[in-house]
Amino acid sequence: MTMPIDTRPTTARWNRPLRFAHVVIVGKYQAPGARNAVDEIAHFLHGEGCDVSLDKDTAANTGLPYPALDVPAMGEACDLALVVGGDGTMLGIGRQLARYGVPLVGINQGRLGFITDIPFDGYQDKLRPILRGEFEEDARALMAATVWRDGRCVFEATALNDVVVNRGGAASMIELRVEVDGHFVANQRADGLIIATSTGSTAYALSAGGPLLHPGIGGWVMVPIAPHTLSNRPVVIPSHSEIAVEIVSGREASANFDMQSLTSLLHGDRIVVRRSEHALRLLHPVGWTYFDTLRKKLHWNEGS
Amino acid sequence: MTMPIDTRPTTARWNRPLRFAHVVIVGKYQAPGARNAVDEIAHFLHGEGCDVSLDKDTAANTGLPYPALDVPAMGEACDLALVVGGDGTMLGIGRQLARYGVPLVGINQGRLGFITDIPFDGYQDKLRPILRGEFEEDARALMAATVWRDGRCVFEATALNDVVVNRGGAASMIELRVEVDGHFVANQRADGLIIATSTGSTAYALSAGGPLLHPGIGGWVMVPIAPHTLSNRPVVIPSHSEIAVEIVSGREASANFDMQSLTSLLHGDRIVVRRSEHALRLLHPVGWTYFDTLRKKLHWNEGS
Amino acid sequence: MTMPIDTRPTTARWNRPLRFAHVVIVGKYQAPGARNAVDEIAHFLHGEGCDVSLDKDTAANTGLPYPALDVPAMGEACDLALVVGGDGTMLGIGRQLARYGVPLVGINQGRLGFITDIPFDGYQDKLRPILRGEFEEDARALMAATVWRDGRCVFEATALNDVVVNRGGAASMIELRVEVDGHFVANQRADGLIIATSTGSTAYALSAGGPLLHPGIGGWVMVPIAPHTLSNRPVVIPSHSEIAVEIVSGREASANFDMQSLTSLLHGDRIVVRRSEHALRLLHPVGWTYFDTLRKKLHWNEGS
Amino acid sequence: MTMPIDTRPTTARWNRPLRFAHVVIVGKYQAPGARNAVDEIAHFLHGEGCDVSLDKDTAANTGLPYPALDVPAMGEACDLALVVGGDGTMLGIGRQLARYGVPLVGINQGRLGFITDIPFDGYQDKLRPILRGEFEEDARALMAATVWRDGRCVFEATALNDVVVNRGGAASMIELRVEVDGHFVANQRADGLIIATSTGSTAYALSAGGPLLHPGIGGWVMVPIAPHTLSNRPVVIPSHSEIAVEIVSGREASANFDMQSLTSLLHGDRIVVRRSEHALRLLHPVGWTYFDTLRKKLHWNEGS
Repeated sequence: MTMPIDTRPTTARWNRPLRFAHVVIVGKYQAPGARNAVDEIAHFLHGEGCDVSLDKDTAANTGLPYPALDVPAMGEACDLALVVGGDGTMLGIGRQLARYGVPLVGINQGRLGFITDIPFDGYQDKLRPILRGEFEEDARALMAATVWRDGRCVFEATALNDVVVNRGGAASMIELRVEVDGHFVANQRADGLIIATSTGSTAYALSAGGPLLHPGIGGWVMVPIAPHTLSNRPVVIPSHSEIAVEIVSGREASANFDMQSLTSLLHGDRIVVRRSEHALRLLHPVGWTYFDTLRKKLHWNEGS
Repeated sequence: MTMPIDTRPTTARWNRPLRFAHVVIVGKYQAPGARNAVDEIAHFLHGEGCDVSLDKDTAANTGLPYPALDVPAMGEACDLALVVGGDGTMLGIGRQLARYGVPLVGINQGRLGFITDIPFDGYQDKLRPILRGEFEEDARALMAATVWRDGRCVFEATALNDVVVNRGGAASMIELRVEVDGHFVANQRADGLIIATSTGSTAYALSAGGPLLHPGIGGWVMVPIAPHTLSNRPVVIPSHSEIAVEIVSGREASANFDMQSLTSLLHGDRIVVRRSEHALRLLHPVGWTYFDTLRKKLHWNEGS
Repeated sequence: MTMPIDTRPTTARWNRPLRFAHVVIVGKYQAPGARNAVDEIAHFLHGEGCDVSLDKDTAANTGLPYPALDVPAMGEACDLALVVGGDGTMLGIGRQLARYGVPLVGINQGRLGFITDIPFDGYQDKLRPILRGEFEEDARALMAATVWRDGRCVFEATALNDVVVNRGGAASMIELRVEVDGHFVANQRADGLIIATSTGSTAYALSAGGPLLHPGIGGWVMVPIAPHTLSNRPVVIPSHSEIAVEIVSGREASANFDMQSLTSLLHGDRIVVRRSEHALRLLHPVGWTYFDTLRKKLHWNEGS
Repeated sequence: MTMPIDTRPTTARWNRPLRFAHVVIVGKYQAPGARNAVDEIAHFLHGEGCDVSLDKDTAANTGLPYPALDVPAMGEACDLALVVGGDGTMLGIGRQLARYGVPLVGINQGRLGFITDIPFDGYQDKLRPILRGEFEEDARALMAATVWRDGRCVFEATALNDVVVNRGGAASMIELRVEVDGHFVANQRADGLIIATSTGSTAYALSAGGPLLHPGIGGWVMVPIAPHTLSNRPVVIPSHSEIAVEIVSGREASANFDMQSLTSLLHGDRIVVRRSEHALRLLHPVGWTYFDTLRKKLHWNEGS
């Protein structure tokens, strides 16, 4: 799949100046072969004229001799973050880098993900044009979520995928009061409620029966889990709205914000979801489309 | 809806001998007005020539002067159990009486249930023919469930609605290995898995997207909750099969057998479901059909 | 529910100048009592200081002595269209008036609709503030659809609800190639495909399993009807995209644009959907919310 | 995958007498390579000691020198039908042979089907034990459907997959009155209604959102297509019931019985479905299970 590099004509495009001068590599260092992959990619970037750093954990785990940066330092110093790993790694670091506006690119050694879409085999030919400014940019909205108890904010989190309110594992159900911009929407009796971003619409929300949201949609999808009313359907709500979910009844309720859990919610607790002022900036090779990814990941060409 | 009683011709049918000589009343004694309802129905039954007893709790809570029986005594002595309350009350006592073969009739003071289908208003005209042997009998299959750990049975329960295996409240998902009659069926990664009887097909399984099963179907429906594979669909399996569900992974998994919970399941634990040798015997007024109940409860005539 | 009119204090708000000086009434004249309703509303508007006209058909059918206007004349002369009827009547005239920017208000004599939300009983108290400029405006996007055959446009239509491509009644299925902004999205083998607006998301798309879209979402939802691939899910696509659906195979395919049908589609025909430059302007009484309507129409408070 | 034949120990099992002395081969003769496949299989059967015939069309299309039989002759003379092709070929001949009780085996040259489950590569090792009586038998129920107009039966058909009542291609919907054993069940306003057998539950009914029915379930599943009521769900009904579907309204309604279509249904026409007294007898290699097939065909092991 990789074209032999030296036979390519040295056209003007390869003389274009570097767009991203300082690149930080973030690796999923637990994966076998990750150290070698990071090492090789670092060499490649260096050869392309980039300054190369590693995120602190990647540096510690691989022992590779590049400067080690923590997230604030990356945010200050780096022009691009290159993630070597899967969607989970990408979302983890992306959530933290969003506030600094640093764009991300994902290289995947295994099965391609929804957002880590450059295969390790032949990554050089995909990456070179990106480094020189040829890419598709794909901005992903984030949620800024807070939890309120007795009028005080007791928890804050940012979510790229979803905010989920759940019944306890052995409890029979939960009752939630949903408001949008201060207006009552519905009392939901269900196993739980998912409020997902476009990015999260291919994750848990999809399992619960939600639709897919193109990233260009300025909305969240609200998906009940096993609702007690047959007429309860997923609703797509503008992301400039403020959504509040109040625990009306149900034992051992909990809330999840992507990976972070907040357990022991009390009756009257309110989970409030707003659009974050920051967005995740994903870069893809020219020609990338959301629908190609969707089709491949959902096996749309395989009949049943 | 009730015909005036005294204008009815005294036909042979009303001279038919009593089919059920000894009737036990089981009341949902927490409901307001329950004491009066039980008292009135007891009088009515007495007037019809029946011996009347009360279940122990109903007797204690109402203080009414009828013999008080526990479940084994009812099973030995009574020909019919008359439940005054909702579906929950009916299922609770029904599960216990099934082994004795005592049939049940349900009188509902509020909104009619799926199986408690005689309204308190005018119950006399519905009950009189039943007492003399004119009714539709509707047998409901029960599940005999066991939980196995390291080759030993650590739990046993009977379920009229469903057996549910759940992830923990804050856990991300559970992986279950399903076998039918010793054959591997599928590894399910999901929030959980419901195995429901026909009776349970209108309860939790319906919320999770399952079909309705007519009580005459000799099968269970297996419904995944928020499955991670889009092609995972409810499957209807013959109830003479043995279904085994093994916990492969997932923290804080639990199992529910109707109301009873078994928490802290371990990896390797196996939940085994077989058809109980007993069935719940429900009696309905002549002309009752399953589909009438379904249509009313699911609001099938209300367009959206 | 209606406050007695004359006891209300004549506050400053009722002295506000008329916002809508010339109002046209559009009636669903087939409905019994429609003539009287139109007559009464016309009197009321006149009393409020408005010039009143009738749409041509309403004038002809009721024989009421107000100026009769066709759609272009309404578009030129009128400041507001007042529809007396149901959602169908509203959508029919709304589709035609959108290009003129004339806002609409709906008064319903029967069961309230999704967009005709003022009950005839007591309409005066709801209408008076609207006439003076106090209302919630709710803009509904429209689709501009075209059908292309051999490079020529053979059909054009505007749709407020949906564009639907269907297999023939006795044909087994249809295969459609979907493109968004020139990029291949998927080959769909199904009974058909619905592309619905937010307004249409509560109509046919809902029956086929689609989500609800808040009118503030700048998107369409694409819902397959009985798709042959289990992983095929509704997708919400930005409405600034151009969606093209090409007939790949299937006998007697047809397309529907709200009410209008185009039958006998041929293989290779392309249905192209763009966002119309016009929008339907609906006015509602102050305090109206989309979610109230949704909850009432979908019976969200009725458990099953 | 095929074991070398001559190295296998000649155990007692291969000395067992032939169970099926006369085998007819039915080929999907349009497929490339079909002639050679049929020829080779015929040789193999002959070598195993079977008398071999061909179905009339297969004989005509392949020109192979074996006796040619029509369906009644097969029914009279043959002990086993061996179908070389896909599920469609199997269902076509199976529907006709069911009344004669002749069992069928399916060999598939391409992608394995739900019921044609022996791959052509190495078919010998699968077929040899079957010919000597070692197999799993899997009986599939059939529907006997009739259409009634003005009290007269105007159409009769047998269906292995489903009976479908449809709206016309350009019509907006159909209204159907459903009765089971003479009791009113529901008025369905929808695009159509599917009544599927267990075999058909993996076909059209699955696309419309129906559950999977194990072949051992004595029931049909009734699945509405795009129903107008959100609470309308698939229902599994005992197959010993008589289901009647009456056309209440809707233009150009049609009914399909597997492949056969009956168009131009009129208001008042009744489609009646009963269980056929015959069943399709499928034979599978020992160790076959329904769930293996399901898992492979539905890609249950592929995550999304």
